[in-house]
Amino acid sequence: MTPQNPVTEYTASLPFDRRLYRQDIACSIAHARMLARQGIITEKEAEAIIMGLVAIREEIEQGTFPFRPELEDIHMAIEARLTERLGAVAGKLHTGRSRNDLVATDMRLYIKEAVAQTVAGLHHLQATLLEVAQAHADVVIPGYTHLQRAQPVLLAHHLLAYFEMLHRDCARFRHAGAEADVLPLGSGALAGVPYPIDREFLAQELGFSRVSDNSLDAVSDRDFLLSFLAAAATCMMHLSRLAEELVLWSSAEFGFITLGEGYTSGSSIMPHKRNPDVAELARGKTGRVYGHLLGLLTVMKGLPLAYNRDMQEDKEGTFDTVDSLQATLGVFPGMLRSLQVNRERTSQAAADSLLLATDVADYLVGKGLPFRQAHQVVAQVVRYAVERGKGLGELSLEEYRRFSPLFAPDVSTLTLDSALAARRVKGGTAPRRVREALAEAQKRLEVCPGS
Amino acid sequence: MTPQNPVTEYTASLPFDRRLYRQDIACSIAHARMLARQGIITEKEAEAIIMGLVAIREEIEQGTFPFRPELEDIHMAIEARLTERLGAVAGKLHTGRSRNDLVATDMRLYIKEAVAQTVAGLHHLQATLLEVAQAHADVVIPGYTHLQRAQPVLLAHHLLAYFEMLHRDCARFRHAGAEADVLPLGSGALAGVPYPIDREFLAQELGFSRVSDNSLDAVSDRDFLLSFLAAAATCMMHLSRLAEELVLWSSAEFGFITLGEGYTSGSSIMPHKRNPDVAELARGKTGRVYGHLLGLLTVMKGLPLAYNRDMQEDKEGTFDTVDSLQATLGVFPGMLRSLQVNRERTSQAAADSLLLATDVADYLVGKGLPFRQAHQVVAQVVRYAVERGKGLGELSLEEYRRFSPLFAPDVSTLTLDSALAARRVKGGTAPRRVREALAEAQKRLEVCPGS
Amino acid sequence: MTPQNPVTEYTASLPFDRRLYRQDIACSIAHARMLARQGIITEKEAEAIIMGLVAIREEIEQGTFPFRPELEDIHMAIEARLTERLGAVAGKLHTGRSRNDLVATDMRLYIKEAVAQTVAGLHHLQATLLEVAQAHADVVIPGYTHLQRAQPVLLAHHLLAYFEMLHRDCARFRHAGAEADVLPLGSGALAGVPYPIDREFLAQELGFSRVSDNSLDAVSDRDFLLSFLAAAATCMMHLSRLAEELVLWSSAEFGFITLGEGYTSGSSIMPHKRNPDVAELARGKTGRVYGHLLGLLTVMKGLPLAYNRDMQEDKEGTFDTVDSLQATLGVFPGMLRSLQVNRERTSQAAADSLLLATDVADYLVGKGLPFRQAHQVVAQVVRYAVERGKGLGELSLEEYRRFSPLFAPDVSTLTLDSALAARRVKGGTAPRRVREALAEAQKRLEVCPGS
Amino acid sequence: MTPQNPVTEYTASLPFDRRLYRQDIACSIAHARMLARQGIITEKEAEAIIMGLVAIREEIEQGTFPFRPELEDIHMAIEARLTERLGAVAGKLHTGRSRNDLVATDMRLYIKEAVAQTVAGLHHLQATLLEVAQAHADVVIPGYTHLQRAQPVLLAHHLLAYFEMLHRDCARFRHAGAEADVLPLGSGALAGVPYPIDREFLAQELGFSRVSDNSLDAVSDRDFLLSFLAAAATCMMHLSRLAEELVLWSSAEFGFITLGEGYTSGSSIMPHKRNPDVAELARGKTGRVYGHLLGLLTVMKGLPLAYNRDMQEDKEGTFDTVDSLQATLGVFPGMLRSLQVNRERTSQAAADSLLLATDVADYLVGKGLPFRQAHQVVAQVVRYAVERGKGLGELSLEEYRRFSPLFAPDVSTLTLDSALAARRVKGGTAPRRVREALAEAQKRLEVCPGS
Repeated sequence: MTPQNPVTEYTASLPFDRRLYRQDIACSIAHARMLARQGIITEKEAEAIIMGLVAIREEIEQGTFPFRPELEDIHMAIEARLTERLGAVAGKLHTGRSRNDLVATDMRLYIKEAVAQTVAGLHHLQATLLEVAQAHADVVIPGYTHLQRAQPVLLAHHLLAYFEMLHRDCARFRHAGAEADVLPLGSGALAGVPYPIDREFLAQELGFSRVSDNSLDAVSDRDFLLSFLAAAATCMMHLSRLAEELVLWSSAEFGFITLGEGYTSGSSIMPHKRNPDVAELARGKTGRVYGHLLGLLTVMKGLPLAYNRDMQEDKEGTFDTVDSLQATLGVFPGMLRSLQVNRERTSQAAADSLLLATDVADYLVGKGLPFRQAHQVVAQVVRYAVERGKGLGELSLEEYRRFSPLFAPDVSTLTLDSALAARRVKGGTAPRRVREALAEAQKRLEVCPGS
Repeated sequence: MTPQNPVTEYTASLPFDRRLYRQDIACSIAHARMLARQGIITEKEAEAIIMGLVAIREEIEQGTFPFRPELEDIHMAIEARLTERLGAVAGKLHTGRSRNDLVATDMRLYIKEAVAQTVAGLHHLQATLLEVAQAHADVVIPGYTHLQRAQPVLLAHHLLAYFEMLHRDCARFRHAGAEADVLPLGSGALAGVPYPIDREFLAQELGFSRVSDNSLDAVSDRDFLLSFLAAAATCMMHLSRLAEELVLWSSAEFGFITLGEGYTSGSSIMPHKRNPDVAELARGKTGRVYGHLLGLLTVMKGLPLAYNRDMQEDKEGTFDTVDSLQATLGVFPGMLRSLQVNRERTSQAAADSLLLATDVADYLVGKGLPFRQAHQVVAQVVRYAVERGKGLGELSLEEYRRFSPLFAPDVSTLTLDSALAARRVKGGTAPRRVREALAEAQKRLEVCPGS
Repeated sequence: MTPQNPVTEYTASLPFDRRLYRQDIACSIAHARMLARQGIITEKEAEAIIMGLVAIREEIEQGTFPFRPELEDIHMAIEARLTERLGAVAGKLHTGRSRNDLVATDMRLYIKEAVAQTVAGLHHLQATLLEVAQAHADVVIPGYTHLQRAQPVLLAHHLLAYFEMLHRDCARFRHAGAEADVLPLGSGALAGVPYPIDREFLAQELGFSRVSDNSLDAVSDRDFLLSFLAAAATCMMHLSRLAEELVLWSSAEFGFITLGEGYTSGSSIMPHKRNPDVAELARGKTGRVYGHLLGLLTVMKGLPLAYNRDMQEDKEGTFDTVDSLQATLGVFPGMLRSLQVNRERTSQAAADSLLLATDVADYLVGKGLPFRQAHQVVAQVVRYAVERGKGLGELSLEEYRRFSPLFAPDVSTLTLDSALAARRVKGGTAPRRVREALAEAQKRLEVCPGS
Repeated sequence: MTPQNPVTEYTASLPFDRRLYRQDIACSIAHARMLARQGIITEKEAEAIIMGLVAIREEIEQGTFPFRPELEDIHMAIEARLTERLGAVAGKLHTGRSRNDLVATDMRLYIKEAVAQTVAGLHHLQATLLEVAQAHADVVIPGYTHLQRAQPVLLAHHLLAYFEMLHRDCARFRHAGAEADVLPLGSGALAGVPYPIDREFLAQELGFSRVSDNSLDAVSDRDFLLSFLAAAATCMMHLSRLAEELVLWSSAEFGFITLGEGYTSGSSIMPHKRNPDVAELARGKTGRVYGHLLGLLTVMKGLPLAYNRDMQEDKEGTFDTVDSLQATLGVFPGMLRSLQVNRERTSQAAADSLLLATDVADYLVGKGLPFRQAHQVVAQVVRYAVERGKGLGELSLEEYRRFSPLFAPDVSTLTLDSALAARRVKGGTAPRRVREALAEAQKRLEVCPGS
């Protein structure tokens, strides 16, 4: 695999596009079958070619295929091997097609599979989120804005937010999959082919929903890759947010959770450390996925039609994106399941009476004060309490009434539980609502299981 | 508009989010109406608030609204003005909502409109491509791969490739629009609101198809912006490719087209220049759109839930993307219509006999030679012809037969026209096919006119 | 400022390049002076032109200059105005130059100033870091890796880490400034000018260190902008890290600091909130700066020589980068000075005995155990202590000796203070070292004050 | 190399950081030597460790080293092997250091080497540019702006523009190298080490110019990588421009050059094609390098101090950048040397009389007309000539005088040669100037040969 010639090495795609061997052979088998059906080659020729291709696939899978780097790409490597096996008849396989439409078809098959796997991975992670949410249905944590404690929320409600994000990710990946689901084969190098080929048959054999409408576009279109990469970038962004929270929550300062040992690692010199490495790496891998999206956008910018060799650069970044994404989706479910909630710490944090400040303002609104004024009154109450080191629940009615005569004995009914329960609007964190939301989420997952 | 305090200036979003005044006021009107309907405020209060908001909208549109920078953002600026007009009752408007769910709603309304305008712009450009294609239905140019002449294609076929790209762009923008079409209002700051509000009514009033399912997600979700920006990046990439071709084609060397004077400009020192500035700028503007996509991806990476002030940075890049895209879509139709084809130059280029080399190989395949061997034979023929400065059509049968005995007198039937006509496969460049494709494209546009 | 013609509007740079008026007029004055000196125009003509330019500069600064959008760019706007004032003689100014070399010179002057201001801003922030470090010279906090408490460090030591980052930033901006410090004027449109101009004189007048060596390069080079943008991206990354720490440290969970009221803001609905908005925005603005770097890289990719109109897109992103950077550098010193350290919280956190675990391992190394084994022993000690809810300092010698006979009574000498003091290696956190480092840092700043 | 455990696989860096074995072993040898010198370990222990490390290096280089994936990273893999060989004494090597300062040192050594190689590659390419320029010293081509023919330039002058770009690249890479040239070893995990180590000795042994000043910064700083990646992005941008020109120039339409067969490739179906694949790939590889820069910027954004596992993501993108850059720099010299100039085509293009239009305007300036008016007059002349299909040289004096009485018989002295010769200003394209510039460039290269 180390060619002497630097130019051959520079231009060779075989080291990475060999990964497309299954797709490439599938295309060739379908193509041979079609050529025979249309009378362009004989049935016997087709049979020989197909048997040869099947044998080559086995060689590759068993590791006995001779990947000679000077063969440039996976298409040529397979055709060359076919020629070794069959002689000149192998040369008939490339009738009515070109590498330009072939490689586009290979990549589309690849992306269709990647979408299916990704959606399955997303569903698995969504299911895990539900499972973890259900297992901690009564855990309350402070909800944050600006990383400042804001209002209490159920941990389950918080985890459901990620369920929603991944739900959108699924739709985005499926859109990319639908874009990929168009057969370019038959577009030739750029202008169509001068043979009576049957593109619909090819589409059917290869599982495509339809054939492309314009040959120039078909060989120069990489939109489906960009759509996949953009979906991946957004998905990794979501996972980076969850990872950030796992890192925060497992810090000594938050202390809300402990990640399983399998998901943390020690230090080479600090014997006490339990680092959330998996979450950190997931966060970090966002960078490379962003980079690959940008890389391909850069490659495609300003390219005249039709195929240009620059476009060979569409592969490695895509493959690495798929790998990074799958791997990340692969580790999250276990990591989440390994998570232990330190209820003492979450309870203590959720008991911070400042989390009820908004409810005190809403209480005053209930007494007739416009919200904006109520807000100002409570700001004063809060300042007063903080200066005295008291919680809002520790203030006497008299103290409250220094700031507004609207305060009455029922101000003492404002509690963590009342604050939660009050947010029973659709999408709110009221326990009843969250139970409903969990049930609905479960249903959504069942309706649409995997890809 | 130049606040003294550098911190106020640093955090103020009013200089750019004032652009959202229409959306913000629409939200407030719907909200006031809903609050009254639910008995949270009185009908009379609602009426006063709504009339005040309508008056403020007029002030803004007439340029008499006092945008004081210390007011921080458009929401506060409007509420402050409302208070000036109505007194304390204005403070009731902010009951049961927060800036977090409000700004998210504003941006979603904005994107929904931007999608509609963008799709309309894309359709207009698609219609123009068809018009220009039809007007030059018989123009043949060399098709290129690697910027080397490859096979002849109809100019109309080439332009249709861009029609396809824009078609996919529409679908991508619509997906972004569907993502935006979910109402966050009612999510409060992060946890839902403790008032009996009617979110379905709000959705209906504001034209949203549904309400969001999770309050934490609703206030921290900017996916719909990322999807819009990603669609814009791909769309600008397409336009940059067309721009590149216009630049190439209007060079002295290609000479295929002349752009209208309105779309070129002179030089400050070279009196003869006619520079394709509009096309160049369109190509260049791709950079900023890519940059904005990346910018927002960077902002969102690793942010813990829910709202963080970093997210205020979602606006300027989005606005500039919408502006750049609309402006670019706005200039292309005129530029394309202004284009004159220099048929002498295109004919001369299309007459390059090397464009028929593939057809000669396919001719030999027709005589029974496997394609790969046919390809090798023709490579020798081409080398022979090039060395002698001859075109393929100028070789005698005898000369052809030096390379293969399969050549027969009918080799002379290979012409530009036969090459075009032969590619009659679906998506191919055969004139008949292209006529069909134009008709189908026209139909697709009519079925789906604008957004 | 709202041109009717969409094409004029599309291509006009006047709305943003008017910002370069000072640079542009400075170039023109120097140019006119040089033309007269070389006898290309008369002294009297030069005088008239220069006086006209000075008057125009005043008009612009007093807001009376008529910026008509149809004038395309700042160069044309100024020349047109000069013609209004002087008549045809104004037309002599553009002798021996072109807009291509002129705009390149304008941008270089602009960047040279931006570098000077940025370096001054960096120095001011560095000085503030030293000031804050000195004011809290005895504060100890846990040092973190993986956001897990690792070893104790002085807060001053931590702040000095940022001093180092900004120090490197300075050097990087200066490199960009040195790249900008080359005069392109005299390169004409692309090939040089056919007049006996004196480029060295121009360089001297405009404060450039040398003149460019190749005219084609001079008009198509934007490296100095890319270098500035890359330096800005790294600098913003540094500031985003500091911002992240300020956000973390001012959370309820860390509680290490309280930011001044001027640097936090309230919530529209949560009366108790004190959000670190300035720090969050600084973190968020990193996104746009990354985006601008990428945007210009995209613009420049694959452009043939020499000038292309795409390059007009070099300006807005650069201007916004300079503004964002300056504004961010502008708010940090005040924010840092406003910071109050909550010593009770920092002391408590630093007292976490696990921070001494490495020192216990090093203690065993001192007794002859290889480090790797010592590390394993202490890992067991730590697990033992954690399970029993004890700190390392609360273990008896007997308990220690269960894990290794090497433990002796002197294990009790391991304390927070001993741990700090022991790290007296150059760059370490020992108080003595940090005092030295502060003094050295101070000296470095004094040697190199501002740009 | 295929670990079972997905988490181990997810976190393992051994598959890629094994590339740092030489650097890692060099660090360990220097460290062991220093530990002995300082009496922290015995001379005998150091000797055993060093001999073990040397043996391990040989194992790796001979491919017999057992890379077990569960060993996580190259440091652990080497230490584990050392333990197999030496027993417990191997555990003394990690005294007074941590993986955090070790990996930072490894990467800095790596970048220092990468800079040296890159600069050597740049110099080689610069030398080739001079060689090719000299070999075609008399070739004239049209200089372009906006891809429109503008003014004639020497091909050598054009190639020298790239010499200048690469010259700046060298300086930028050297700046990155200088940033890398600081030793972090001795910073420990984050706070310094509690051993009397000699960092200056380590620096000397490992070839660093100085030691780092702050331990927290030292382990969390990746600026030197960002600087390298930014320099690489700009350098690839330059190469993409040259690549674009090679692609353009070898098109049938330009026809200025023919690239050597080794640098073009055929088509799988079009027998006549000679595609400039190497140039296209070089242009395309710009995308991945931009992507890697952005990827690392994303990784680092907002990370709190000190080391976070995200930073492990600094390696693969850097390695791929170095590889892509070296490979691209490796193929350009041969490609340029292989280039044949088609003088017939270049002469024909350079003879386009419109290239003289600026000179005609300057001629009128010489007769006393202000430049702006002269420009307008010549614009009319050009329009007149173009409409009549005449070159400027084919117009009679009478025709010229229709547009201005200032035209005199000497207008006929304006020729391609006079236009070239007139641009004798420093940096201009006059043959004399270009000869000087070539000589100076040669000298610059000799003064600073390689890194």
